[in-house]
Amino acid sequence: MRAEVADAQYEQAVVDLLAVLAYGELTAFERTAADAAMTTNLADKVALAELAIAEYRHFEMLRDGIELRGANADAAMEPFVSPLEEFHAHTRPSDYLEGLVKAYVGDGVAADFYREIAVNLDPATRELVNAVCEDHGQSVFIVERVRASIKDDPRIAGRLALWGRRLIGEALSQAQRVAAERDALSALLVGGVDRPGTDLAEMGRMLARLTENHTRRMTALGLAA
Amino acid sequence: MRAEVADAQYEQAVVDLLAVLAYGELTAFERTAADAAMTTNLADKVALAELAIAEYRHFEMLRDGIELRGANADAAMEPFVSPLEEFHAHTRPSDYLEGLVKAYVGDGVAADFYREIAVNLDPATRELVNAVCEDHGQSVFIVERVRASIKDDPRIAGRLALWGRRLIGEALSQAQRVAAERDALSALLVGGVDRPGTDLAEMGRMLARLTENHTRRMTALGLAA
Repeated sequence: MRAEVADAQYEQAVVDLLAVLAYGELTAFERTAADAAMTTNLADKVALAELAIAEYRHFEMLRDGIELRGANADAAMEPFVSPLEEFHAHTRPSDYLEGLVKAYVGDGVAADFYREIAVNLDPATRELVNAVCEDHGQSVFIVERVRASIKDDPRIAGRLALWGRRLIGEALSQAQRVAAERDALSALLVGGVDRPGTDLAEMGRMLARLTENHTRRMTALGLAA
Repeated sequence: MRAEVADAQYEQAVVDLLAVLAYGELTAFERTAADAAMTTNLADKVALAELAIAEYRHFEMLRDGIELRGANADAAMEPFVSPLEEFHAHTRPSDYLEGLVKAYVGDGVAADFYREIAVNLDPATRELVNAVCEDHGQSVFIVERVRASIKDDPRIAGRLALWGRRLIGEALSQAQRVAAERDALSALLVGGVDRPGTDLAEMGRMLARLTENHTRRMTALGLAA
């Protein structure tokens, strides 16, 4: 493959990556605000509103990153609207606790995954991806709330553990759909015609790391993974 | 009435006013973010997310204003949680357009009303109330969207006009409930034992101004008031 074709493919992959992240942050903003509306506890409302605003700021950073690369952010996000909306439609929390678990477990595994991809990127893009995937301490608040609720009523732990598994299943299913449709983006992870990409052994190690972190988060919440 | 009793009553009234405004902005943040989630148009999502964040910033300004006066913001907001939640429970938009009309018409009449009250306040409080009630141009966006939708399908105008009337009816009903329960707050408007307050003629003129502005907003949307 000629260098300029490889460059164009890399550019497309980076724009795809920033775009899926950007739309993810925009929907995270909406979801977190909806979580805030599900509680009457004012301290919780404030913590969630601040988290929602941080997510919107990430969306802005990513949108600016896309535009800086000469692409149109709306057009770039368009292919990811339907997979992300479908993920959310299939994982609509039925109550406040399910919303909190979704924010912690779902966003956690997504952030881990994007950080794994970021290792293969140019430094500026890697820095942007790592910045928006950083946990700004909001997890502490969620972990406390979920643990306290389980302590009050241990029976909910089974339902929330199932919920966590369903979240991961839906996330994998939408991720596969995106991978099948966006060749350039998949090539960032598994390599393309022009470059070897991650080999099978490394892919296995990555999946092991993602699973391990997921289990750690479920345990932190007091849930069986 | 002794001066210190009057002062204490005024302080209580100001804290009440800032508190009802603060909780109103917090719920406005949640509602506006929910409106953003009801559209797939990215420009609309962005405009509504920015409006939601501005509302949250207003909440913070008001909370700080309450704390500056030595009151606890959570305790101060508590009496207004139920009337505001009930207002929103009774006026849950069934679609995106109803959400936009509610934001424009409902928040518009509330802002007008608070600005009328603010005339009777000390300068610092008046400035704060006027700042959070200022329209930051978001109305232009809503007016354009609603007018364009009516142009596309004129039949929706009747339903939205009814919706506008229902919003006002519910707002009045919750405002009367608050007035009946919060003497100090009502006294800001109608006067108390120690001061004459607004006389009946002035009250009539105020209601005329509120109605006139409401009609103007409905007309701007292309709706019969």
